[in-house]
Amino acid sequence: MLSRHLIAALALTSSLLALPALADGQAKPTPTTKEILAKSTPVEWRTPDPQNLIIMQLPTGGVVIELAPDFTPLHAANIRTLVRGHYFDGLAIIRVQDNFVTQWGDPNDDDNGDKSKLRSLGKASKTLLPEFTRAIDPKLAWTPLPDGDVYAPEVGFSEGFPVARDPAAGQQWLAHCYGMVGVARDVAPETGSGSSLYAVIGQAPRRLDRNLAVAGRVLEGMPLLSGLPRGPEPMGFYAKPAQRITIESVRLAADLPAKDRPAIEVLRTDSASFAALVEAKRNGHNAFYARPAGKVDLCSIDVPVREAKPAH
Amino acid sequence: MLSRHLIAALALTSSLLALPALADGQAKPTPTTKEILAKSTPVEWRTPDPQNLIIMQLPTGGVVIELAPDFTPLHAANIRTLVRGHYFDGLAIIRVQDNFVTQWGDPNDDDNGDKSKLRSLGKASKTLLPEFTRAIDPKLAWTPLPDGDVYAPEVGFSEGFPVARDPAAGQQWLAHCYGMVGVARDVAPETGSGSSLYAVIGQAPRRLDRNLAVAGRVLEGMPLLSGLPRGPEPMGFYAKPAQRITIESVRLAADLPAKDRPAIEVLRTDSASFAALVEAKRNGHNAFYARPAGKVDLCSIDVPVREAKPAH
Repeated sequence: MLSRHLIAALALTSSLLALPALADGQAKPTPTTKEILAKSTPVEWRTPDPQNLIIMQLPTGGVVIELAPDFTPLHAANIRTLVRGHYFDGLAIIRVQDNFVTQWGDPNDDDNGDKSKLRSLGKASKTLLPEFTRAIDPKLAWTPLPDGDVYAPEVGFSEGFPVARDPAAGQQWLAHCYGMVGVARDVAPETGSGSSLYAVIGQAPRRLDRNLAVAGRVLEGMPLLSGLPRGPEPMGFYAKPAQRITIESVRLAADLPAKDRPAIEVLRTDSASFAALVEAKRNGHNAFYARPAGKVDLCSIDVPVREAKPAH
Repeated sequence: MLSRHLIAALALTSSLLALPALADGQAKPTPTTKEILAKSTPVEWRTPDPQNLIIMQLPTGGVVIELAPDFTPLHAANIRTLVRGHYFDGLAIIRVQDNFVTQWGDPNDDDNGDKSKLRSLGKASKTLLPEFTRAIDPKLAWTPLPDGDVYAPEVGFSEGFPVARDPAAGQQWLAHCYGMVGVARDVAPETGSGSSLYAVIGQAPRRLDRNLAVAGRVLEGMPLLSGLPRGPEPMGFYAKPAQRITIESVRLAADLPAKDRPAIEVLRTDSASFAALVEAKRNGHNAFYARPAGKVDLCSIDVPVREAKPAH
C-alpha cells in the first residue's frame, strides 16, 4: 500500500485545460513536474546574478540564497557588505522555532547574550530604511496568480519570487512563503540591518508581510535549515551554545572564482513552463489524485531550481 | 537587534476590535496568546476522549495524536484496531520530505521493500471506504472563519480541527494543515487502512484535500516529526534502514492506566478565548507588528493545547 504513491504525481499539467470535466478520473493524467521541466527550453531558465547569490556554509552543507535587490535594495547592499567583511563567519544558527522560522546571526545579539561581545558590523550600516514594501513598477516583471489570496488584493510572481500587492496603495512586497529569507530586527522598524536573518520553515506566516523586510529566497539547502532540532527555549532559541550550529562561512558568489560558484539555474516565473507547472498544481490530476484542487495558493508553488549544465 | 523580538507577540487580541484605526501603531497593543489563554475559563478547554488519543513513542519522545472519528470514523476504528494489535511497534518513520510530510509505517511497504516480510494487519481491515469527505451535519459544531480561502467555498473549525466545506455539495472535510495526520494509500482510493500515516510538516498541501483521508491531528510532539533530517531519496524516503527512526510503540490512551495517559487539554474551537486568538492573529498589532494583517488563513491558526492541571 501507499508509500511512494502518496505524492507520486503532485505536479500535474496544463494539458488538461481544455477538458470540460475531470471528476471521473478518466481523463489523461497531467504531466508531472519532471515531465514539464524536461520539455522546458534553455531560455526559460535564468542564471542568478552572482552579486545576488550568497552561500552559507554549514557543517552539514551549503545553503544558497538569492537576494532580491529590486524589492529590498538597501538590505541586499548591506548584506553584501556584511558578507564581504566576513561578518557571519563563526556565528551560528541561534533559533529554530517549529512551524515558523530558523534564524541565524550573532548569539550575543539576544536578550540573554553578552552585548559587550557583540561582533562589529564593520562597514555595514546598523540601521536601514525598512523596505517592508515598495512601489508597484511596470518595469518589474509581473506574472499574476489569479486564484485569489486571503491576505492581499493581488498575488503573483516577479523575478522568481512570490509577491503580494495592493494596487490601491500602489505597493508590492515579497511574501513570507516557505523558504523566503527575512530580516530580523528589534522593535524599531529601521533596526533590521541584515546581520540576523531568518528562513520560513512552516506554514507561510503572512502576517509578517509588510512588518518585516524580506531579503530573498533559499534556492538550495532548505533541508539544512528546516530539518534541525527545534530549540527548547521560548520561540525556539537554543538554551546552550553547544546546541547551536556554527556557520563556517558566508560568501558572495561574485567573490568566488567562477568554478566555485553555485552552478544553478532558476526557472523564469514568466515562462510557459512555469505557467504549466502552476496549472498542474491547480488543476492537475492522475490516477492517484482524482480530484483537482481547482485553485492554487501563492505559497504552495515552488519555483524550480536545477543544476546548470556545464558549458560545451 | 532583533532576536527575541522577531515574534515577541505574534498572537494578538480581540480587545482592539472597536478601535477605528490601528495604522499609526499608537493604539493599545493586542494581548498575546499567553495573556488571552491566561484569562480563559476551565469550561473553554476539553479533555480529548482517550478513545481518540494515540501515543506514538519514539526514541526522542512521545507524539500524541487525536483521531477525528466524526470525520473519518472507519479510519479511526481501524487505527484503533491496528494500535491494539501492536501493529506499529517496531515499525519506523520511513520518509521525511521537506516542506511536505513525515510518514511512518512498515518499511517493507515500499516500492523497494520486501513484500514477503510485510507485517500482518491482524484484525484490521486492509481496505476502507475512502472517507475523503463527509456530509455537512448541523449536529457537528461549526465555527466559521469568515476570512476566505483559496481552496474551498467555506472554512472554519469543528471539534478542534480545521475544516473546509462546500455547502453546494453538502460536503465537508478536514483540511491538510500543518500537523494534520493523513492516511497514506496506494492508487486505489480504498487502499488507505491507516497502517501508514503521514503528518504535514510544511506549507499546507491543500491539493491533497478530498484526495486522501485525514485521520486527526498531532496535539503534542510535532517537533519530533518535523525536525528530522530529510530523506535523501526521491520524495524523502530514507535510503538505508539505519537512517530510519524506529517506533518503539503506539498505544491508545484508553488502554493505559489513567495515570499514564497524556494529561492534556485542547482549547474548544467554539470558545470565546479561541475567537479572541483568531482575532489576535487577524488584526492584532503591537509595537513590533505595527501593521495588522487584516485577515487570517485557516492553516495559520494553531488550536492551543495545554497540560491539564492535576485534579484537587
